[in-house]
Amino acid sequence: MNKLEHIGIAVSNLEAAEQLFAQLLGTASYKREEVASEGVITSFFQVGNVKIELLAATHADSPIAKFIEKRGEGIHHLAFDVDDANARMAELSAAGFQWIHTAPKDGADNKRIAFLHPKSTGGVLTEICEDKG
Amino acid sequence: MNKLEHIGIAVSNLEAAEQLFAQLLGTASYKREEVASEGVITSFFQVGNVKIELLAATHADSPIAKFIEKRGEGIHHLAFDVDDANARMAELSAAGFQWIHTAPKDGADNKRIAFLHPKSTGGVLTEICEDKG
Repeated sequence: MNKLEHIGIAVSNLEAAEQLFAQLLGTASYKREEVASEGVITSFFQVGNVKIELLAATHADSPIAKFIEKRGEGIHHLAFDVDDANARMAELSAAGFQWIHTAPKDGADNKRIAFLHPKSTGGVLTEICEDKG
Repeated sequence: MNKLEHIGIAVSNLEAAEQLFAQLLGTASYKREEVASEGVITSFFQVGNVKIELLAATHADSPIAKFIEKRGEGIHHLAFDVDDANARMAELSAAGFQWIHTAPKDGADNKRIAFLHPKSTGGVLTEICEDKG
C-alpha cells in the first residue's frame, strides 16, 4: 500500500458528528458527498495528509446502518491508496485475502475502491482505493 | 491535532498478525516494544507517514484482552500527534471531552500519551501523543 488515504468513521447523526469532530480535530469538514450505491453520505476532514471520512446512512438498509446497529458508532474502515486497484486486488487474492466487492467500483472522492473482508484481515475492514486522476 | 501518528489494532496472536499485516501492507514490522504498564506488547509497521501499531495482551487483565473479549480483534484506537499533551488535554477538557487517563503518561515509541473516553468521541477511542524528543 502506498499510504493511508483515509479512515472511515460510522456516525448516526452527521450534523452532530461534524461538530464533534471539528472540535476534536481542530479543523472543520471541508466537503460532503453522497455515495448513493452504498447508501451513505460522507463528510471529510483533513488532518495532516490523512482524511477522516464520517459515514452516515441514508436509509435503513445501508451497510452503515447495519454496522451501527451491530457495533455502535465508531471506526468503520481503513483505506489505503494504491496505484492500480485491479492489480492490487489480484495480488492480494493470490495471497489468500478475501473481498466484499468482486471488482473495484466507484466510491466517494473520485476513487475506484474495493473492500477486503474483515475475516481475512484480522477484523480490520480494509479498503483499497485508486485515484481516478 | 497535527497529524495522525498511528492506528492501534488489537490482535490475539502477535506472530500470526505480524505475518498477516506484512502481507496486507506490503512491508514488514520494524520493531516490537512492550508497555508493561498497559499489559501490551506492540509491533510497528510504517505505511507512508503513518504507523500501524499491532497490540497484543501480555496478561488476561490487559485492556487489549478485554477489548478482544468484548469486540473481537480489529481497530482499537487512533492516535494523533500533538505538540503539548498537557495543553491539548486542558483545551479538550474545557470543550467537554472526557478522558480515560487523568494526566499524560509514558507510552510506547518514546511518547507521552493520554486516551480520550470513546463515549465523548463518537465511539472512537482516541489517543493524543507528544513525542518526548
